[in-house]
Amino acid sequence: MFAAFDLAKVARAGALGIAATLLVVVAAWAQNDPLPSWNDTAPKAAIVEFVKKVTTENSPDFVPEPERIAVFDNDGTLWVEHPMYTQLAFALDRVKAMADAHPEWKDTQPFKAVLEGDMKTLAAAGEKGLMEILMATHAGMTSDEFQTIVTDWIATARDPRFKKPYTELVYQPMLELLTYLRANGFKTFIVSGGGIEFMRPWMERVYGVPPEQVVGSSIKTQFEMRDGTPTLMRLPQVNFIDDKTGKPVGINEHIGRRPIAAFGNSDGDLEMLQWTTLGDKARFGLIVHHTDAEREYAYDRNTEFGRLDTALDAAAVNQWTVVDMKTDWKQIFPEK
Amino acid sequence: MFAAFDLAKVARAGALGIAATLLVVVAAWAQNDPLPSWNDTAPKAAIVEFVKKVTTENSPDFVPEPERIAVFDNDGTLWVEHPMYTQLAFALDRVKAMADAHPEWKDTQPFKAVLEGDMKTLAAAGEKGLMEILMATHAGMTSDEFQTIVTDWIATARDPRFKKPYTELVYQPMLELLTYLRANGFKTFIVSGGGIEFMRPWMERVYGVPPEQVVGSSIKTQFEMRDGTPTLMRLPQVNFIDDKTGKPVGINEHIGRRPIAAFGNSDGDLEMLQWTTLGDKARFGLIVHHTDAEREYAYDRNTEFGRLDTALDAAAVNQWTVVDMKTDWKQIFPEK
Repeated sequence: MFAAFDLAKVARAGALGIAATLLVVVAAWAQNDPLPSWNDTAPKAAIVEFVKKVTTENSPDFVPEPERIAVFDNDGTLWVEHPMYTQLAFALDRVKAMADAHPEWKDTQPFKAVLEGDMKTLAAAGEKGLMEILMATHAGMTSDEFQTIVTDWIATARDPRFKKPYTELVYQPMLELLTYLRANGFKTFIVSGGGIEFMRPWMERVYGVPPEQVVGSSIKTQFEMRDGTPTLMRLPQVNFIDDKTGKPVGINEHIGRRPIAAFGNSDGDLEMLQWTTLGDKARFGLIVHHTDAEREYAYDRNTEFGRLDTALDAAAVNQWTVVDMKTDWKQIFPEK
Repeated sequence: MFAAFDLAKVARAGALGIAATLLVVVAAWAQNDPLPSWNDTAPKAAIVEFVKKVTTENSPDFVPEPERIAVFDNDGTLWVEHPMYTQLAFALDRVKAMADAHPEWKDTQPFKAVLEGDMKTLAAAGEKGLMEILMATHAGMTSDEFQTIVTDWIATARDPRFKKPYTELVYQPMLELLTYLRANGFKTFIVSGGGIEFMRPWMERVYGVPPEQVVGSSIKTQFEMRDGTPTLMRLPQVNFIDDKTGKPVGINEHIGRRPIAAFGNSDGDLEMLQWTTLGDKARFGLIVHHTDAEREYAYDRNTEFGRLDTALDAAAVNQWTVVDMKTDWKQIFPEK
């Protein structure tokens, strides 16, 4: 009786002990999971496997830390790009804010269309009209002044659907990925078609990416001494378009070595993915496929901008990882 | 007696103790002196004082680590630029190496002059001639190919006076300064009129500056898929000249924030020094003045290139530190 009681007690204690240990292990694993917003599907496994491969010393795929360069597109890859690029929303807001100083805009297209909210006429103005709006709103001030304008706008503007600041409409799984890569000795760069000076004022705070690691499109600037004060004036001339074939050029100009991992979401990222992955060493390419109309948006070949068509075909050929947002991401946006 | 003896012993022991302590302190200081090739003159004191000021927390001049950006010119600031820029020596060597594939050069200026070593005719060809030589030798290959060409050349070429590789004709005091700044949380960038792809292949090894922290002049490149292989072709067109007013433009484009310390040696660095130092916060500007014809070269207002004239006047007005190489530097080049 005594012995039986004792044995039962021991057995019970043992079972409890194992259960307790298991709980601790599971909790620790959950706590240490660097990508908790990713479901345990193929993309997460592919990312973790790649990182392990290039960071394991004496592995044939080992990459020394200085060469661990990862490049990220921004619009549609790190934050929402629908129903319009955030930078375009900024430009349209600027036209309205500047309208008092430009009475002529009331009768001049494409500004008239912007002021009247006539999106159809605006769309008809095409690329030429868009460029006029961009130059009118992005040039004619110093770099410092533009930085202040962007900083003020990004702090107050709200996305029309989600009613949130744009900087909260960033993808939580991608934030985790940026942090995970950096924790593994990667240097993370943004390589975006967006304006370089539109992105830099907020990216360090939001993505942890400092200004010197942001590559983007730019207009020309000119150095001038004004009453003894050095200034950089923003001129209404395109300097560089960091999109499509421009992305490898921008990468080479700013980074000067070939990345080992690239993350994009559209045909604009095709050449960046090719430049990064098509070689004889361990490389990683990933495309974010927008498949979740409920939590975010669903689009690929059916959209004008952020269009994912040839790059999706290339993903299959080149074995790039394709993220299905609906099934691969547990969570889309950060919790407040 | 006992007491007196004891006191003397104690006093002696005390003196010895103090002396020993002093010796240890001095030895430790000498060992820990981060700038041993600098004489204890004003420039060294100014550098140390500035670094202490911006790195001391709660000091009014404290600068957070991410904003500690330091920019360095290269030719004449970090390595020898006389009797000709090293990149020009490279270009002339390339003309000779490529001559067999270009039989027409035997009768075409300025190539004929290069092949015949006729420096007078070459000089008379002026900037236009120089540009022809640069384009013929720097364009028409991929970025990868150019990198190999530069790497091979820099490993074998020798300076005619010192009979040493150019990468050994770097200034030891400036190498120490780069290391000292980095040890104090600075990010060090090169901002040079030299070709960005001419500098990157060797700067990480020689200066500890990775390719992504090198800003320079560039020619246009073009992305092409060639038989399924992504390539960047170097085109014979100027993209950007990173000199004079171009330096603040290049800094803004590549770094995206204003440096807090700038180091140069010529009028080509004037605007970079202005952009860096003329503000209301703690900033540091320094000019290397070539005053040592015996150990290196002596020049300033008397030379065509690397000319130090308006920037020397501006140094006095703006309280930039001027290094007199002859008196301020204990040693010029690294010991082998």
